[in-house]
Amino acid sequence: MNDHPERAPRYFEDYVPGLTVDCGTFSVGEEEIIAFAREYDPQPFHVDPVEAKDGPYGGLIASGWQTTALMMRHLVEHFVSPESSLGAAGIDEIRWPRPVRPGDTLHVRATVLEARRSNSKPDRGIIRSLAEVTNQDGDLVMKLTAINFVLLRDPSA
Amino acid sequence: MNDHPERAPRYFEDYVPGLTVDCGTFSVGEEEIIAFAREYDPQPFHVDPVEAKDGPYGGLIASGWQTTALMMRHLVEHFVSPESSLGAAGIDEIRWPRPVRPGDTLHVRATVLEARRSNSKPDRGIIRSLAEVTNQDGDLVMKLTAINFVLLRDPSA
Repeated sequence: MNDHPERAPRYFEDYVPGLTVDCGTFSVGEEEIIAFAREYDPQPFHVDPVEAKDGPYGGLIASGWQTTALMMRHLVEHFVSPESSLGAAGIDEIRWPRPVRPGDTLHVRATVLEARRSNSKPDRGIIRSLAEVTNQDGDLVMKLTAINFVLLRDPSA
Repeated sequence: MNDHPERAPRYFEDYVPGLTVDCGTFSVGEEEIIAFAREYDPQPFHVDPVEAKDGPYGGLIASGWQTTALMMRHLVEHFVSPESSLGAAGIDEIRWPRPVRPGDTLHVRATVLEARRSNSKPDRGIIRSLAEVTNQDGDLVMKLTAINFVLLRDPSA
């Protein structure tokens, strides 16, 4: 037992398909959206509120990569364990079905889809997880499937 | 004709399958790797050089999301046009086959895989592109397939 069950170490054995973890909430403001986009994604609808108004989204929206990066922070804090995480092999199917606008409050949730032990390395397994980000209206603004390498608690089992 | 052909506006008609665009080079230092990861991906092998030394990569490596964000900047500067870009629907198959380490020099290249006009909106098309990042040894450190909406130059054609 642990006072902070969300911070108890998770190993491969704990990532059971169907497990869903609430990874918390964050919001993004206009300044933060512009600062991120100036550095990484300087398209008019991410960096210039005036141009954005006449652009395809009728206003400023966050770079999808900013939503992804902030989601990652929440996965690291609530879903991934430093004790077992060996990093990601990759990501499948990122989708941004709706834009993120200044002031939106976003919620992150992770669900284990699949877990299998590595054939070549008996100390680890491969976890496929769905990460979903929804806004204050409950609309999905982003999802992706992550493929992570995770250590076993007990490789001899 | 244009003195800076890489900055000439590109429209849907210009994204011909097979087109490859050199999107330039960048490098990442240890401080930059740690600063990004502290904000977005605070796993030990991204933020702590000492812990990272005993970790799964034998040293500090960049968050895959940092490589992705820096790649995006180069795509925006060399491949995407503000005149035609309507943003991305999503990304398929991000892979990080090798780690990015402090001091690595990375090169970004984009190749158009597929271009088709939208069925529902005659002013635009959908482009699928492969983006690849290689290091100074020519090894692939990242790739992804982007799905972008792009305006036509001449929707009546």
